[in-house]
Amino acid sequence: MKVKAYAAEKAGSELTSFEYELPKLDKEHVDIKVHYCGLCHSDLSMINNDWGNSQYPLVPGHEIVGEVTAVGSEVKGLNVGDKVGMGWFSESCMHCNQCMDGKQHLCNDSQATIVGRHGGFADHVRGHWSWVTKLPDGIDMAKAGPLFCGGITVFNPIVLSGVQPTDKVGVIGIGGLGHMALKFLKFWGCEVTAFTSNKAKTDALKAMGAHQVIDSTNPEELKSIAGSLDFILNTTNVKLDWNSFIATLAPQGKLHTVGAVLDPMEIPAFSLISGEKSVGGSPLGSVALTRKMLDFCVRHEIYPTVEEFEMKDVNKAISHLHEGKARFRVVLKA
Amino acid sequence: MKVKAYAAEKAGSELTSFEYELPKLDKEHVDIKVHYCGLCHSDLSMINNDWGNSQYPLVPGHEIVGEVTAVGSEVKGLNVGDKVGMGWFSESCMHCNQCMDGKQHLCNDSQATIVGRHGGFADHVRGHWSWVTKLPDGIDMAKAGPLFCGGITVFNPIVLSGVQPTDKVGVIGIGGLGHMALKFLKFWGCEVTAFTSNKAKTDALKAMGAHQVIDSTNPEELKSIAGSLDFILNTTNVKLDWNSFIATLAPQGKLHTVGAVLDPMEIPAFSLISGEKSVGGSPLGSVALTRKMLDFCVRHEIYPTVEEFEMKDVNKAISHLHEGKARFRVVLKA
Repeated sequence: MKVKAYAAEKAGSELTSFEYELPKLDKEHVDIKVHYCGLCHSDLSMINNDWGNSQYPLVPGHEIVGEVTAVGSEVKGLNVGDKVGMGWFSESCMHCNQCMDGKQHLCNDSQATIVGRHGGFADHVRGHWSWVTKLPDGIDMAKAGPLFCGGITVFNPIVLSGVQPTDKVGVIGIGGLGHMALKFLKFWGCEVTAFTSNKAKTDALKAMGAHQVIDSTNPEELKSIAGSLDFILNTTNVKLDWNSFIATLAPQGKLHTVGAVLDPMEIPAFSLISGEKSVGGSPLGSVALTRKMLDFCVRHEIYPTVEEFEMKDVNKAISHLHEGKARFRVVLKA
Repeated sequence: MKVKAYAAEKAGSELTSFEYELPKLDKEHVDIKVHYCGLCHSDLSMINNDWGNSQYPLVPGHEIVGEVTAVGSEVKGLNVGDKVGMGWFSESCMHCNQCMDGKQHLCNDSQATIVGRHGGFADHVRGHWSWVTKLPDGIDMAKAGPLFCGGITVFNPIVLSGVQPTDKVGVIGIGGLGHMALKFLKFWGCEVTAFTSNKAKTDALKAMGAHQVIDSTNPEELKSIAGSLDFILNTTNVKLDWNSFIATLAPQGKLHTVGAVLDPMEIPAFSLISGEKSVGGSPLGSVALTRKMLDFCVRHEIYPTVEEFEMKDVNKAISHLHEGKARFRVVLKA
C-alpha cells in the first residue's frame, strides 16, 4: 500500500510531502487510516536528531487516532472499522517478563512508532494489534490523540505512585504535559498546586484544576508550602533546584519526573532519609493502563486543551510549538 | 536519682566517668537500668560534633537494652521489672499527624536519645514509655541492643519498599548496618547480593546470607548483573557512582539509602524514567515496626554479629570501631 506522508529529509529540515510503500501486512499488524495526530515535543527532538537515533526520511507523529482499515490474520480484539489510537509505542515483544507482566512499556525490545519506521503525519500508519487501542464510545476523536503520548505519560505516575484523592499534589511546568496532569489530578480528587515560571497563566491554570499557583522560580513561595505535598510531578526538561522542591514534600512524599532533564539531578541523601522521601521517574504507561485512562477521560470529559491545524500546515504547527506558543497541545487534522 | 555515666567533655575527647542527677520522674517517663548498650557510628559523630548539634558533657549510647526500674503514673504498657530496649529516639510528641499515623519516627518534635540529653553509656537512662519497647521472650539481650538503631534502620526500608520474598536484592557496604541487612533479607526469602569493596570478606558474607558477592569498585562486575535487582539498600556514607548501581536494577527497581552521604547524589533522570526506577531514603523506623522486627528476630534467631567490651573499656571499644576493626557491631556490657 502506498502511504502519503510528511517527512524530514535530514536533521532539522522542514517537512515535505513524501510517499512510501508499506509491505504486505504482517499477521499480527493492523493498518490505521489517520484522522488526527498530535504534535509532541518528542517529534521535534526526533526531527532534529537530538537523541542520535533518528533515521531519514523521518515521518513524525505518534499521537494518532483513526480507523482500522486492515487487520492481519492473527490480530486479536480489533476489526476493520474500529476507531483506535496509537502512541509512542507501536509494538513490543509480547513474551518477555515485562510484557507478560502487563508492563509492555518497559519491554526491552519495544518498537517506537517513529524510530526506524514511519509515524502518523500521514494518511495511514501501521502497528501491532497490542498497541493499537480501541477508543471507548463517546470519546472526542479531535482531542484524543495527545492522550496516547502526553496523556499516558502523566497519568501513569499518578497510578504508579499510589496517589490518593486525599493527597496534596503539585505539577512542575504547565505546558503540553503539565496541563493534562492538572486535569487528571483535579478529577482524582486531589488538592492541586501548579508550579509555573509564568504566573500570567494563573487564571487558565486554576480553570484547569489548580487550587493554587506557585512561582517555581521564587524561593520564598516554595518555602511557604514546605512539608505539605504528598506527590510532585515534574514535566520540565530543565535543571531545577531539586532540593527546594523536595523540601515542599510532606513525610513519605514522592517527587516524580517525566521530564528527561539532561543534567544529573542533584539529590542530597539526607533530604530523602529524614522524611522517607523518594525520587522516581517513568516513561509512558502500559496497554491496560492506557485503556483505563481513556475510560476515565470519557467519564469526566478530560481532554487536552488543543489547537487544531490542518495536516498540510504541519510546518506552521511545528513553528508554533517550537516558539513556545502552543496553548497547550497541537493536533493535526488529516 | 544519681546516674553514673561516661561522657565526652568536649568535641572529640575521650570519655571519662561522669555523674549527673536525673530530676523527678515525669508522669509519662520510665527509668531503665542499662544491661547492654551498642556502640554506633552515630555515637562517634555526636562525640565529634560532626552534625553541629552536640551538647557537652555528652553521654553517648542509643542502642540500649535493660530493665525498667521506675515508671511514671501515666505510663502505658510497661511495669517495673520489664526487659526493654530503647534506640535513637527516646520520645516523640504523640499527637502530630505523623505520630497519630503510627510514624512516630517522622515526628518533627521527636527527641533523640543523645541530642540535648544523656544516653546509655551509663548505669541508668530515661525515656518516654512510647519509645521504650518491651523485649519479646527468648531474645538474647547481649546481642539485642544494636537492633534498636542499626537493626531497625535497615529493617524499615525492606518493609517500606515492599520487598517481596521473590525479589532479588542487594546491599551496598557490609559493615555494622549492612551485615544486619544481609541477615534480614536472607530470612525474608530473597536472593541476596552483597556489594563490598573488600572481597576478603566473601566467606563471612556468604555465611550471613549473601548468595553472591560483587566487588562494588569493579565496573565489570557491576555490569555483569545489569538489570537484575529489585531493591538495593545503600548503607555507606561515601560518594558512589550511583548510576552504575541504578543500572543493576530491574525495571521498577528501587535504590534506597540509609547512609547519609554528604555529597548530593547525582541521579540522571533518564535512568529513572526508562525503567520506572526510584531512589529513596529513610531514618530508623516506627514503634510498631520495631516491635514487629523484634518478633521476626526471635523467630529466626537474627542478631547482629557482636564483639563485647566491658562498659569501663568504652574508649578501647571506640578506637576499635574508629579504626574500622569492628566485626561487625560493638556492644558494651554495663
